This record gives sequence, C-alpha cells and structure tokens, in this order.
Amino acid sequence: MLDGGVTTPKGFRAAGVSCGIKRRPASATSAPLDLALVTADGPAVSAAAVFTTNKAVAAPVVVSRAHLQKSTGRARAVLINSGCANACTGEAGMQVAHDMAAAAAQALGCSADQILIASTGVIGVLLDIAKIRTGVDLAFRALDAGGGANATRAIMTTDPFPKSCAVSMGPAGKTITVGGMAKGSGMIEPRMATMLGVLTTDADVSPAVLAGALRRVVDETFNAITVDGECSTNDCVFALASGRSGVKITREDDPALLDPMREVAGHLAREIVRGGEGATKLVTVRITGAASHADAWLAARTIANSPLVKTAIHGGDPNWGRLIAAAGRSGAAFVLDGASVAIGNVPVFVKGVPHDERADLAADVLRANDITVTVDLGTGAEHTATMWTCDFSAEYVRINAEYRT
Amino acid sequence: MLDGGVTTPKGFRAAGVSCGIKRRPASATSAPLDLALVTADGPAVSAAAVFTTNKAVAAPVVVSRAHLQKSTGRARAVLINSGCANACTGEAGMQVAHDMAAAAAQALGCSADQILIASTGVIGVLLDIAKIRTGVDLAFRALDAGGGANATRAIMTTDPFPKSCAVSMGPAGKTITVGGMAKGSGMIEPRMATMLGVLTTDADVSPAVLAGALRRVVDETFNAITVDGECSTNDCVFALASGRSGVKITREDDPALLDPMREVAGHLAREIVRGGEGATKLVTVRITGAASHADAWLAARTIANSPLVKTAIHGGDPNWGRLIAAAGRSGAAFVLDGASVAIGNVPVFVKGVPHDERADLAADVLRANDITVTVDLGTGAEHTATMWTCDFSAEYVRINAEYRT
Repeated sequence: MLDGGVTTPKGFRAAGVSCGIKRRPASATSAPLDLALVTADGPAVSAAAVFTTNKAVAAPVVVSRAHLQKSTGRARAVLINSGCANACTGEAGMQVAHDMAAAAAQALGCSADQILIASTGVIGVLLDIAKIRTGVDLAFRALDAGGGANATRAIMTTDPFPKSCAVSMGPAGKTITVGGMAKGSGMIEPRMATMLGVLTTDADVSPAVLAGALRRVVDETFNAITVDGECSTNDCVFALASGRSGVKITREDDPALLDPMREVAGHLAREIVRGGEGATKLVTVRITGAASHADAWLAARTIANSPLVKTAIHGGDPNWGRLIAAAGRSGAAFVLDGASVAIGNVPVFVKGVPHDERADLAADVLRANDITVTVDLGTGAEHTATMWTCDFSAEYVRINAEYRT
Repeated sequence: MLDGGVTTPKGFRAAGVSCGIKRRPASATSAPLDLALVTADGPAVSAAAVFTTNKAVAAPVVVSRAHLQKSTGRARAVLINSGCANACTGEAGMQVAHDMAAAAAQALGCSADQILIASTGVIGVLLDIAKIRTGVDLAFRALDAGGGANATRAIMTTDPFPKSCAVSMGPAGKTITVGGMAKGSGMIEPRMATMLGVLTTDADVSPAVLAGALRRVVDETFNAITVDGECSTNDCVFALASGRSGVKITREDDPALLDPMREVAGHLAREIVRGGEGATKLVTVRITGAASHADAWLAARTIANSPLVKTAIHGGDPNWGRLIAAAGRSGAAFVLDGASVAIGNVPVFVKGVPHDERADLAADVLRANDITVTVDLGTGAEHTATMWTCDFSAEYVRINAEYRT
C-alpha cells in the first residue's frame, strides 16, 4: 500500500480549494477546503461510476449518470463540493448541477458531458453556483500532479481523518497503479450519512470493462460496509482510467486490475468504517455455512446493522445470544442446532451449544480495536460473506441528536 | 378503556408469584415476582397464538406451538416465567420446557398439551425446573379472579412499568370484554429484546376464528411497533376465549370481537414502545401515497427503525431530510417530486419543495411526548400504513453496552 491517492497513477492531476461553501469554524485559521477537482491529462479517459440506490437521488447524481451515458463512459474530470448536498432542491437544484458541470467543462475546454460531479453536505439547501464558479477557476489553476492530498481534504465534512491511498501491482513492464480517495459516512453537516469515492488508475481499459470491474470491486468493498444502515441520497463512487501505464486490460475479471482496485477500495472502505460516527472499533462480520450467496449477505448485513450487536461490542460484551438472534431474524436459512459463533478465535457457541466458560477469553478479544466475529448459520452449505461495521456508542446518538441542524 | 387486565373478562383467574428465578435486587424488600399463571375456569377454552418469526426459536415457543396443534386450539392455561429465556439451551432446554408444561398440567388436572408456556430473560442459560415446580404449586394456590395485576408484574423484566388493560364493547346483552397484559421490549436481563402478550376474552368463539382474529389484530398492533428493529427468540402473543359472555362470534372479521381486541392490543403495543429502552417519546409513523400495501409497510418500517430519524426526533430536530432519505432507501416506490413530509400538522416538505421557514413550528411539535410524522411517498396511489416507534437516546446505548451480562 502506497501513501498516495488519486494523483499517484500516471495521467492525473488534482486540486482542493476553498470557495466559501463550508462555513469557517470559529477556531480555524484558514477557510476549509470545500471543492475538489480531479482531472485526466489530455483527452477524455475511460470512466465508470456506481451510484446510490436511494430513490431520493440528489441532482448531481442525476446529472453524472446522464453524462456517463451521453459520453459513453468517457470523462475529463470529477468535480466534487462538500458542505452542501444539493439534494431535494427541485428544479433549481438540477439547474445548479448542470451549471456546475458546465463551469468545469469551460475551464477544461471539453464538453459538459465529460464532467462528473458530486455534492455532499446539507440536504434541502440550494448550492451557490457563484461560489462554485469561483472555486472551479481556483481549482483549475491549482491542478497539480501532487494535488491528491488537497482534493481528499476538500471532500471531507465531519470525517475525523482524510482517506486516500494507492497501490502498484504487477511485474515490471506490466505494473498497474490504482489510487483513490473517499469521504466517510460520518454525518455531513448533521443532515446526512453519505460516502463518496474516486478511484484512478493508469490501466489501459475500455469504459465497459472499467464499469464491470468497478461494479465487482464496489460490491466487495464499499457495499460491504455499514455504519448505521442508512443509505444517502448522494452516494457515488467514480473510476477514471488514464491508460498511461500502457498495460491493456480487456476482461473485467482480470486480477491485474481487479486486485489493485480491490485493495485500494477495500482500504478506503474500512477507513470509512473506522471513521464512522462515534466508532471506536472496526468489526469484521464473517458469515459461514450459509445456504446461498444471498443468504450469507442477508445475515451479514442484519448482524452488521444490529443495534444490540453493535452496543454489545461497544461494551466489550461477548454476547453471542445477540448474534444468534440477529442471524435468526435475518430471513436467511438458519439451523440453530448446527449454528456456531466465534468471537475472534474463541468459539463461544458451537453447533447449538453455549460455551460460556470461554466468555472471559472472548471478552479479552473484544478489548482490541479490530475485531472479527464469525457466525456459522448451521445449514451445512458453504456460502460465505464478509462485511465491515463499527461499534455503536453513545457518541453516535450525541452527534446525531444533540447537534441541531 | 378499563383499568383491568387478563382477569377482567369472565371465566379467568390468574396469579403472579415469586419462585427464585429472578435475582432479588440488593435494595428490594421482597423477592421479585417471576412466574405468571393465567387459567380458564372449567375445561379447556379456545386458544390461539402468534409466535416469533425468528428462526432461532426458544424451547418454550417450540413446545407451545406443538401443544396448540395437538390440542386443536384449546388450552386451560398460560404459564410464563421471567428471568430466564430458556433459549439456545439445546436438548436439555427442550426437556425443561416439556417439564414446565407438565407441572402446570398436573396442578390443573388437564393434559400437558392444554398448557401454553413462555419464558423471557437471559439466553443460553438453562431454566431451573425445580424452581418452576415450586412456583407452579404456589401460583395454583394463589389463583384469583383479581390476580391479573400480579400476573402482569410477574412477566416484567426491565420494563419500566407494568402493561395491562381491558375493554368492554357492544350493546347490553351483546357485550364482549377483552383483557390483556404484555411485557415490553426493554432488555430482559441485558441479553435480549423481547415481548410477550396474553389476551383474554369472554367471547364465545372457536379456536379457528380466534386464531384468525388474533392474526389480524397482531398485524396492526404488536407487529406495527419497533424499538430497535430487533426480533427476539421468544416473542409470542396468546389469546384465550372463555365463552362466558354468551356472545357467539363466527367470523374472524366480526368487529364485535376485532374492535375490543384491537383496542386492548393496540394500547399494550404502544405502552411497550413508551417503555422501550431509553425511550422518551412515542412516535407514530404514518405513510401515505404508497403504491401498495407492502410498500407502505416497507417505508413505515424503514423510517421507524432509522437511527438517524430516531436520533433527530430525540434531539427535537425537524429533520425532514432524514425521513426522505429513509423512505427513498426503503425499497418502496418513491417519487421525490411528489413526496411530502409533515411533522405533526406542520408540512415541512411539500411535493418535493422544502419549507424550512416552518422549522421552528415543527421543532415546537417535537417537544411533545407523543409525536406523529407523516411521509407521503408521492406515487399518487393511496395505500397507507401506521407504525409506532420511540426516539433513540444515549440511554439506549448505555443500557445495552454498559451493563455487562
């Protein structure tokens, strides 16, 4: 894993600037970064995206989806503002989203449909397009091959730390680099939980193959995390491929591209969980013994979102009963007499029989910051799933209840 | 609404006794009640039940389900202990459940399959059958037509208050009385969220018609509440009908029985929410404008379980964005431009347009203890649903994280 980001792969520049959308905190000495621009050098490159499945989609999501379609998967840049989600803003919000893309297109000298945009922040507030226009000019002039770090900071809202990384893989002459940045599912302003991510690579890959690879990778990474089970109006992950490595990828299941993408996206996804609201522990939920792929995910998702499981882990309580109860209500096929639970490597419930004499050992496991719990659904079949979640603390409630919007 | 309970309808006696399953709190002057017996006078009466859908079912649920089937819906009594759930206890637990029913059958002089049983409390701990046997003898001797109040207390665990009520309806000569008791979804010992309920009536009704009526009533009451989206291994609701009113009911949709059952069950269900862990507010979630019955319930359930919605209401924040985002991710058909949100009677989002100038009015509404939020899904169709939930406080986390099992 490299200490890099979206500008680590060849062919990308980025910038993060301040344009006045986020309020400056009273204690701050400088204005917060709130506009990120990531550009591909030269003409438009292969681009793909995965968008929120929420039916209440924000204007920038509608616009980016349309642009990708119109450009048949080619883009020059991704422009993202933080501090305002431009969601639930009706016709006026759609106009602002179009204007935002147009501003970037004008600066870069390309058509608007080669610009992908995203917004994150307060719902129901109109984005100030004048500020965006000023910001786009600033960002365009600041574009730099070392600009990934500032871009990463510019998409943060209440994230406790920036999230970016990069990785290079493959033998000499066949090395592919993937970089990425993401913002987390902390509350963005106190109005929405959301995530955004941008992956870049120097692989030489068509839009269709890139889209297929992104879909696969997102399912195993960003779609396998949860902080509170909420899904925002603005979630999206973009991928841009510059082709500058000269390494041609022609199949979406080619590990030469999938592996580095999975490593970068997986790292960013786990960092989002680690930075989840009020989170103190990263919890890996492993399901084994599921009757089907879908059942494995259903049980994993139910456990990863269970308030009782998440509070027990927060309290360091090796409460296997809550894991069994959550698995049992998940809708997945479940055979109690065959079911097992392990906390870390400590089997506390084995084929229907409690082993509470190991509770102290299991409690020791729960003192760590990284914890794995494994639940076997007891069906005898061998489907599995892995999700990442965080513990559930009183701090989560404080963040979401006590801060007024 | 009468200030009564399971012994208010004619033909029932009950008792609540202490048999040593619950630990006596250090501060208590007497041992806590932990065994409830509700009996029908004379021979077995019509009986019905609705059980948890959790696939990890506790032994008493397995036994009660089998007994109802074997007796073709006739029962003499319901025996319920608190302090131990007898769940996830394997073969030994099944034996204890059978022995528990047998003890009551012996005392009452009936066959074991005419006894319905339930247990609530810690998961994974074997129930002490010797204590149950002693308790059954005590309870049998204490049976009384005024015993409903003690029985209600004997099924409580961490419930903040007992929950019972009764209602009489219908013209003179056709009056039907329904009584009920329930325990809530507070944590029972710190190991499981659960509910139990017993309804009694003096209606003259066959087991099949009673079962149909109970199913309908439960769907609109106990199944329409949520505290934290969890579903226990032990949940069940029993109904017993003594026939002593002489009022014959031959159809499961006869309002002469449905109305009083719905009123009693609805009241008990809302009391469970009010007594939910850490709850400070009872929240009625109304969905309108849904494309189907199923969609209306899906959206209602998603909103009622949304941590972001529940924390916003706890904080008194009229955060319509969280309601829209939850409806949008619910899976129900949703049209943002047609969607609306009202907090109490204050429309804060109307057909896709925010009305944040009414935020102060809406915040006033949220200061009350009983709150209704209405979300129109904007499809133009007219399906509706109503659920009850509570707010989400730091106290919930404290209860579930900081108390060690």
